[in-house]
Amino acid sequence: MTKRIKCIIAYDGTHFSGYQIQPGRRTVQGELEEVLRRMHKGKGVRVAASGRTDAGVHAYGQVIHFDTPLSLSSEQWKKALNAQLPDDIVVRSIQEVDADFHARFSAKAKEYRYKVWTAAERDVFRRHYCAWHPYPLHMDAVNEALHLFCGTHDFTSFCSAKTTIEDRVRTIYRAKVKVDGPMLEFRFVGSGFLYNMVRIMVGTVLEIGQGKRSPTDIAQLLAAKDRRFAGPTAPAEGLYLWRVYYGDEWLDRELADG
Amino acid sequence: MTKRIKCIIAYDGTHFSGYQIQPGRRTVQGELEEVLRRMHKGKGVRVAASGRTDAGVHAYGQVIHFDTPLSLSSEQWKKALNAQLPDDIVVRSIQEVDADFHARFSAKAKEYRYKVWTAAERDVFRRHYCAWHPYPLHMDAVNEALHLFCGTHDFTSFCSAKTTIEDRVRTIYRAKVKVDGPMLEFRFVGSGFLYNMVRIMVGTVLEIGQGKRSPTDIAQLLAAKDRRFAGPTAPAEGLYLWRVYYGDEWLDRELADG
Repeated sequence: MTKRIKCIIAYDGTHFSGYQIQPGRRTVQGELEEVLRRMHKGKGVRVAASGRTDAGVHAYGQVIHFDTPLSLSSEQWKKALNAQLPDDIVVRSIQEVDADFHARFSAKAKEYRYKVWTAAERDVFRRHYCAWHPYPLHMDAVNEALHLFCGTHDFTSFCSAKTTIEDRVRTIYRAKVKVDGPMLEFRFVGSGFLYNMVRIMVGTVLEIGQGKRSPTDIAQLLAAKDRRFAGPTAPAEGLYLWRVYYGDEWLDRELADG
Repeated sequence: MTKRIKCIIAYDGTHFSGYQIQPGRRTVQGELEEVLRRMHKGKGVRVAASGRTDAGVHAYGQVIHFDTPLSLSSEQWKKALNAQLPDDIVVRSIQEVDADFHARFSAKAKEYRYKVWTAAERDVFRRHYCAWHPYPLHMDAVNEALHLFCGTHDFTSFCSAKTTIEDRVRTIYRAKVKVDGPMLEFRFVGSGFLYNMVRIMVGTVLEIGQGKRSPTDIAQLLAAKDRRFAGPTAPAEGLYLWRVYYGDEWLDRELADG
C-alpha cells in the first residue's frame, strides 16, 4: 500500500543551483530524488516541496513529501535518507501523513529569515550564510518600515519584474528584526511570498535604515505596484526558508509568542 | 626604506591545502604572496607566519609579517590587501612594527580553539566549522581531564608520531571548555603546540567525556610518551588558530581575565 511521507529538511544552498531539478545542475530536488530512486531499486520517486528556493538560498525548514510503497518506520526513513544524502542536506524530521497532505498546497503560511552581518570587518566564516552590509543603520526606521509591510497588500513592487503570477496580493503576519550585536536577523511570516519578495523587502529596508529613504516610503511603494521603485534585491546567501506552517492553530500560537 | 608590516588575518581553511605554500595547491601563504607580488610590481615578497595550519584548519587570529619598501598607512594597507584577497581570507588589523619583530620567533604564546557540535541533529550550516560528535558527555570528567593538561609536560603522546622535533616539552597555561547549548568550544592557551597536539588532546578528552577512559588517564598518557596510547586526532574542521600572544604582560592579563 502506498504511503505519503512528509519530511522537514535543512540544506546549505551554497553549492546548489537552487531547489528545483534541472538537467546537468546540482539541485536539492535532484539529490533527494536520486537517493529515493536508489532506495526504490531504480524506480523514480517524485518529490513535491512547499516551494522552490533559488541558487545560494538556504533552508532550515523546507517541507517535502513523496509517496512510497516501502514499509519503514519514521526513524528508519530518517536514518536511511541521512546516511545517503550529501552532507549539505539533512532530514530533520519525518512522518507518515494522510494522502490529502500536500507540501505545497496544504501550506497555510511560511516563515523566511534573512541574516545580515553589519560589522565593519568581513567575517570569512559567515560569508555564505549572511549578507554583509557594513553600514550603520537607524533601527527605529528599520522597525517602522517593517511594521508597514504587515497586513494584506499587493506586493507587485516587491517581487521580481519577471513574476508571471497575476495575483500579487499576500498577507504578512509578522515582519520583525532581531539584533544580536552586529548580526541582524529579519523574520517574515506570511501567507505566501512572491519571487524575490523577501530579498527585495530586505534590500529596501536596508536603504531605509541607511537614511536613503523614509520608512513611510513603504506605503507609497506598495501603492505604486512597480518593481522599479523599490530597493535592490538583497543577495541570496542571507536568505533562509525557515518554516512552513500547515495548521492554523499552531500558527496563531507561534505569532502570539512573538 | 624597508618597513616591517605585521598583520592579523582570519581565514576559512575549508578550501585551502593548509597555510604553507605548496606548488600546484591553493594555500593561504600562496594567496597572500600573490597579492603582495602584484602590489610590488611583480617583485616577490616573502610572508612569515606564526606557524602553519593544516588543510581544513581555520584561523581567526593568525599573525604574519613581511618587509616592504612601499609607503602606505595601516588603513591603506588593510584596504588594498582586503580588496585583492579572495573572500576566504581577511586582514583584520595591520601595523608597522620594529625590524626585530618576527611573527614566529617573537611569539610568546598561542591560543587555539576547537568547536564541537554535540546535537543529535547534523547541522548543515556548521559542517565545515566544527566537528560533529553527537554523544552525551560527562562534563565533569571533561573539565577534570582538561585541568590535567595544564602545566609543563612532555607532550610526546599528544603529537603526531611523524613529529621530528626533539623537544616535546610545552607549557599549557589554560585548557577550558565553554558550553553554549549543544556547542562546545575548547580553549587552549600554551607556550607552543606540537603537530596535531590540540586535535589529539580534544580527541582524547571526548573519549573521556563519553566514559571510554578515566580523566586521570591524562597523567599516565603524558608519562607514557607514546602517541599510540592517546585518543584519535579530532577532525581539522573544528580547529581554529585563535590568537598569537607577543607581550608577556598582555598574556598575564588575558589569563587573569579567565
